[in-house]
This record gives sequence, C-alpha cells and structure tokens, in this order.
Amino acid sequence: MQPYPQSSNISRRALLSTLAVLPALSSPFIPVSLQAQSATSSDVLPSWNDGSARQAITTFVKETTDQASPKFVPPGERIATFDQDGTLWVEHPMYTFVMYSLERVPVLAKAKPELKDVEPFETVLSGNREARAKLTTPDLEKILGATLTGMTVHEFEVEAKKWLETARHPRWNRPYTELVYQPMLEVLRYLRDNGYKTYIVTGGGQDFARMGSDKVYGIPPEQVVGTASATKYGYDKDGKPTLTKEPKLTLFDDFGGKPEGIHLMIGRRPYAAFGNSTGDQQMLEYTGAGDGARLMMLVLHDDAKREYAYGPAQGLPDTKVGTFTQALYDEAKKKSWTVISMKDDWKRVFAFDQ
Amino acid sequence: MQPYPQSSNISRRALLSTLAVLPALSSPFIPVSLQAQSATSSDVLPSWNDGSARQAITTFVKETTDQASPKFVPPGERIATFDQDGTLWVEHPMYTFVMYSLERVPVLAKAKPELKDVEPFETVLSGNREARAKLTTPDLEKILGATLTGMTVHEFEVEAKKWLETARHPRWNRPYTELVYQPMLEVLRYLRDNGYKTYIVTGGGQDFARMGSDKVYGIPPEQVVGTASATKYGYDKDGKPTLTKEPKLTLFDDFGGKPEGIHLMIGRRPYAAFGNSTGDQQMLEYTGAGDGARLMMLVLHDDAKREYAYGPAQGLPDTKVGTFTQALYDEAKKKSWTVISMKDDWKRVFAFDQ
Repeated sequence: MQPYPQSSNISRRALLSTLAVLPALSSPFIPVSLQAQSATSSDVLPSWNDGSARQAITTFVKETTDQASPKFVPPGERIATFDQDGTLWVEHPMYTFVMYSLERVPVLAKAKPELKDVEPFETVLSGNREARAKLTTPDLEKILGATLTGMTVHEFEVEAKKWLETARHPRWNRPYTELVYQPMLEVLRYLRDNGYKTYIVTGGGQDFARMGSDKVYGIPPEQVVGTASATKYGYDKDGKPTLTKEPKLTLFDDFGGKPEGIHLMIGRRPYAAFGNSTGDQQMLEYTGAGDGARLMMLVLHDDAKREYAYGPAQGLPDTKVGTFTQALYDEAKKKSWTVISMKDDWKRVFAFDQ
Repeated sequence: MQPYPQSSNISRRALLSTLAVLPALSSPFIPVSLQAQSATSSDVLPSWNDGSARQAITTFVKETTDQASPKFVPPGERIATFDQDGTLWVEHPMYTFVMYSLERVPVLAKAKPELKDVEPFETVLSGNREARAKLTTPDLEKILGATLTGMTVHEFEVEAKKWLETARHPRWNRPYTELVYQPMLEVLRYLRDNGYKTYIVTGGGQDFARMGSDKVYGIPPEQVVGTASATKYGYDKDGKPTLTKEPKLTLFDDFGGKPEGIHLMIGRRPYAAFGNSTGDQQMLEYTGAGDGARLMMLVLHDDAKREYAYGPAQGLPDTKVGTFTQALYDEAKKKSWTVISMKDDWKRVFAFDQ
C-alpha cells in the first residue's frame, strides 16, 4: 500500500526538526480572512514589484481577454491551474498534509491502542527524537495511510477542519491558512476578475486540500485536484449512506500525474499554470504545448529572511521539500517560462507583513 | 481487462437489432442547437404539464433560493447532478457510447488489419447477423476496450466529435445530439438560472460524454463525471506532450460508483439528482441523505409512442438497457422520490416534436 508515493521526497532531517519544535495545540481559533482586496484596473497585483514576472501576468491577461487580440480566449475556456505547497502557501519545513498526518498519530492511537506497540507508530508516539529520525519513507507512508484513510469522508472532514483551525506553524506560530502568499492571492483574484476559472492542482491529498480552499483562496472544492484515494460507498448502522476512504490510490497527482489529473477532473488544457518544483514540470509542459498565449510560471524560494531559501536551483540548499533543481531552472529559461523571484518580485510575502 | 463493466447490462438481442438497422454514415452534418429558450419566472418549464413532478421542481427551487426560507442554500453549494443515458437523452436501442464503439470497429480494422482474423472483431466485421447475436459480454468489453483506449486523448476527441456530427439514430434518422429531452433541457436551464451548477454524472465513458456537452446541454467538460480510463502522460516523436488512454479503469461511475465519482470530482453532496435506472439509485440515496431540501427524481420511460416504454417497473418490458425495476419504483415511493412519467408529465419529448 503506497497511498502517497510523493512522500519519498520528505527529508527525515526536516521531519525530525519539525517534530522537535511543534507547539502545543492550545491556541484559540483565529478566524482567517486573507482575501485580496477587490482589484480595479488601476490597482492590480499591488504586492508585486514592477518587473518581468508582473509584466508576464498582466500581458497574458490583456492578450487573452481582448476580443480584438489574435490570442483572445473565450471565457469558458479560461482555465488557470496552481500547485499549492510552495506555490500558494508555505511548504517548509514539511508539507502541511504530512504535518497533519503526524499530529494525528496520538489521536489514532487513542482509538486503536494496539498501535502503541506497532512500528512506526510506537516510534512517533515515543517522543524519542533519535528513533524518530530513523523513520524511513515506507514508515511515513504507513503513517499517511493510517491517518488519511480508513474513516468516512465526513469524519475526515471534521478532523481536518478542526486541525486547520487549531494547528500552528512552528516558525510563525500562526495557522497554516495564514501562511499563504499575498502576491499569489492577488494573481488568483486578478485572473478570476478576468473570467478565468482558477484550480488548485496539488500533489498533496485532495480531500485535505479542499478543506478551507474556498475561504483561503476563493477556490471551491470542485476546483481542487489532488492525490486522491478511492472511496467506497456503503451504509452505516442506521442505513445512512457513507463514503469510506480506502487505502488505495485513484489518482497520484504529481509529476506526469498532474496533466493526467487535469484531464480527469477538468478535461481541458489550462492556459496558465503556476508551480515551484520538479513535480510541476509536466503540468507546465502540458500547458505550454497548447496553441495561442500560454502563461507558465515557477516560484523560486530565494528569500531566507521573509520565507525560506531552497532549491537547489541557483546554488540554493536542497532541503528535499519542493525541489526546484538547476535542471528545472535551465528548462524554464529554455522554454521561456517565467521564474518568480520571491525576493525580488514580491513587495510582501504574507498579508501580515508590513 | 474490464474497462466498462456496466456493459454487462447490454442485451445481445438489443445489440443485434441495432446492428441490423444501422443506417449508412452518409448524411451531411446538421448543426445542432437545442438550448432551451431563456426562462423567465412566468415561463419556466414550458414543456411540462402541470402535476406533481413539475411542482416538485419549482417548489424545490423556490425553497432553496429564498433567503427567508429555512431551506435556503447558499449559491456556491447549489449542485445538481444528472445521469445522461435515458435521463437527458435517448438510450435505446443501445447506449450511444456503445453504438460509437461498435461503429468504430471497421475503422480500427483498417489501421490494424490483423484484427480481421481475431474474435470478436471478425464477427462484428463479418456482417453475419446470427454470429453477431452470439457476442458475449466479455466480447463487448473487448470491443469497448479496443475502440475507447489505446489512442491519445486528442485522437479520441477528433474521432468522437466527427462521429457525433455524422452518426444517425436508427429510428429517427437524426444525430444523437438531437435526441435530448426538451423538458430536461428546461430543467437544466431553470436550475442554472437559479444559481445551480449542473453536472452530468454518467455510467458511460467520461471523455465521450464530454464531447458536445457544452453545445447540447450548456454543461462544460469540467462538469461531466463519467466512467474514466486512466491516461498516461508521455511525449510524441517531436517531444510534444501527449496523454494516452489506457485500458485501465480509474473510475467506474455507476451504482455506488456515482456517489464515489461525485466525491472525487465535485467534493460535495448534490442538492438535486436526476436518474432513470438502478445505476442511479445510490446517487439519489446519497443526495437524499443530506440535510434540508433535496430533490430526487427518476424518469420513467412509459411512452412507447413518442419515445420508448421499458422498465420493468409497472409491468413495462425489461429491455436490459436502463433498467427501472419495480423494486426501484417501490423504493422511490417509500423515500418520496418523484417519478417523472414521460407520458403524463411531458407536453413534448424532443425539441422537434410538434
């Protein structure tokens, strides 16, 4: 059973450091409201510095929405897809859905005490950091499988929503839903104001990514494509219909799986695609292979001060999460995809930045 | 390989009679325009007779869109799902995507001459009607697999579109896309005019159902959920990205697979669901299990003169296509689902009816 194969990208060192600094889940729920201001034509993308990245976005929108332009795209065909982790919100030190999964282990062990004596759960529960550091990728996959499947869809939604409202990121001590990039919220809004349907296309769990996507990004659940486990239709003891999350993959939505997921769930090629790692390369290739104007962009995390700096493109450290390789960087240059420098292109990173 | 297991419902007798009467594919393309007239509040559902079915629809819409109603549903949550074959368009004597598949066999044999000596293709190509009558369900599945997979998504779209424009229904000698039920087009329009997002949720092939869904029903491809084969991302000889349809099921979208497909592709429970057979029962159950106002409706084909009469609910003949059993009829009564009598509830069936 390999419900989330992309976890092979997870660094054990990063996992350990995360577990070491996780705060107690005691903070009260703080309502999140990160919607960008309504954008007028004179005031679009206010958190972007003038430069080639901002220019690429506004030129694309003008060309595809001007009826007189040879690159005009009819409103119904305007589709834009966005990777989530590292493209719309922070993915360090760990993908948020993996963080959720690890923090679910103690809860799971309460319901199934027998897990306390079974690896890798025993290790996660032990508090022994050295032992935790030795968890392998198959161990992590077992944890993902056990915490993300086996319950009804409704039970999962209740738990994941509660977690998102209470969990805090170890560095900022804020809900994960506040760690979204303000410039990207502005791009989402700007595209929607111009008739684009915006989609999340994530390698992370689809059901998890759907929680709060409407509130945080203005993207409804039906416009979230992600790695999805099968569900099984059945009935509870009162005869009420249930859908149970099964430990079986329906869609692995990363690398080549992203265009496959886009075809399955949307059925047409996007005109714009945004990513930040090798897992997004095929989505950008697929988008760029269409006719007319297409916009392909990659976020480069080169801002250690306001966020993180990792890559390893351009000599940035390789942290194994959200890998932006030098080869991907070279490919972007070759194909005229636009690289967004977080440091240079963004006036501010988060809504809470001054 | 069983890409389309629902084909076990296909009657060999029906298959034979279809093959016997198929017209030559020589008719010119006739543009299709079956959109319902824009509905005003005084003129909704003009092709419906007054009665409990029409009443159920208008009451549901009023209750869920009136802010003062305790059953008010916020616009973003207004989801309505429709089965296609037998609910939105004619499914007799054969599901349209199966018809497509059978008519593709000669084309396939041109590209792969070796098929001429391989069963069941030899039989389909022979013109021997008695031999054709003996085709088994596994035979039909082989034909579906061979004609619906193994090509790129783009190649499939080109072929399926061309077929839909030229193929004719044996009884009416009209394109299949004209054999849509005018009263149902009016329901789709009426729901959309009231903020509902309308979806097709079909047991038939998803890629096939997406062809022309926008033109025929006003439903864009991303709002079509159907039985889907996996696709495989790759590159053609020029290095251009391709998606190839694989002989492997990703989603079997019938019976319990309908709620599973709805969860995968939409991520929320519908408020209204329309079907016509046992394959739709679970979708209606799932819809009805939600809180507040829900609308569940089943089309009963009891109009041999204007369309067909089959069931076998209420003593209608069992033709194995689109089975509406007496047990489903009884369940509908028990659960207060509304049965639409084609004969009594519809003033006209098709746009071309007088």
